[in-house]
Amino acid sequence: MSLDVLVETSARHVHLTKEHVGILFGEGASLTFKRALSQPGEFLSEQRVDVIGEKKTLSNVAVLGPERSATQVELSLTDARSIGVDAPVRLSGDVAGSGSCKITGPCGSIEMSEGVISAKRHIHFTPGDAEAFGVKDKQTVSVAFGGPRAMVMGEVTVRVSPNFKLAMHVDVDEANAAGLSGEVYGAVIL
Amino acid sequence: MSLDVLVETSARHVHLTKEHVGILFGEGASLTFKRALSQPGEFLSEQRVDVIGEKKTLSNVAVLGPERSATQVELSLTDARSIGVDAPVRLSGDVAGSGSCKITGPCGSIEMSEGVISAKRHIHFTPGDAEAFGVKDKQTVSVAFGGPRAMVMGEVTVRVSPNFKLAMHVDVDEANAAGLSGEVYGAVIL
Repeated sequence: MSLDVLVETSARHVHLTKEHVGILFGEGASLTFKRALSQPGEFLSEQRVDVIGEKKTLSNVAVLGPERSATQVELSLTDARSIGVDAPVRLSGDVAGSGSCKITGPCGSIEMSEGVISAKRHIHFTPGDAEAFGVKDKQTVSVAFGGPRAMVMGEVTVRVSPNFKLAMHVDVDEANAAGLSGEVYGAVIL
Repeated sequence: MSLDVLVETSARHVHLTKEHVGILFGEGASLTFKRALSQPGEFLSEQRVDVIGEKKTLSNVAVLGPERSATQVELSLTDARSIGVDAPVRLSGDVAGSGSCKITGPCGSIEMSEGVISAKRHIHFTPGDAEAFGVKDKQTVSVAFGGPRAMVMGEVTVRVSPNFKLAMHVDVDEANAAGLSGEVYGAVIL
């Protein structure tokens, strides 16, 4: 048995602490809403930053709001290698010992000794959806895709919260490797 | 039963006709050997070109030799989207109706009305290896990988020729999506 899940592709982005927003965009600044994202409460801000690696810079990178308790840079491995930073595959928030970079904004810059990751693929479930799919928080599942780049992605982490909306998140490398574009669904395999 | 195959990642590159080498690098020019590639007779040339899309340019793109009967540009979908070209997933040589771009070299430029593809993943077999694996030319197989981005890639095309050396070829998006790096092997599933 398998049930289908909507798949969304996360482009490169940054999460910032309140303190870092102040350093990058000026004292007292806060992230301003541009567009809602699919997960409730999350939004694309009007703010943009440059992410600077050992070799190159990614300019004009999206900053997502609201502010978080730790600053985190999420890049595809293609991005990370192109600018010369390490980006271990991690779940959001698991940044201990992850990659380093510099972030610059119009009013200042931050040296990050860690915080650069390549997001581990995952599915956001509400408790009700998790029950319908027969999965539990932190469980690992696989997700199958058809088409000219048909693929079964393993090591997909289940995340369950009443604050979530049902969706699988992959990065740009993963979407391209599976040939995903537009509104696309994958079959969850337990 | 499964047998393992060495996996090699193809970075973006261009194949050129003799005529196009002359336009890009000067009349009578030919591709000069820099480094052998894994497939017998194929080599990385000293020559480099720029690949120009609707939005951006990829500079300093590798040209592979020897010259071919048709010019072909092989990009990852990440590359293709970044410069604004269409790159349908195709086997090498299957360029009818594929993407368009401009190619420039030190002595001239070419307008390509087609020839830009995203390479369909495939495995090169010698006839002996194909027999050992129990596969036939043009057959489709799957290949499994372990690790933190464990994955089964479907739609992998079998190509058999006495001129080949056993190896699976994936592009950079696919290697990154599966977390492949260094010397890595996949398990061929029939």
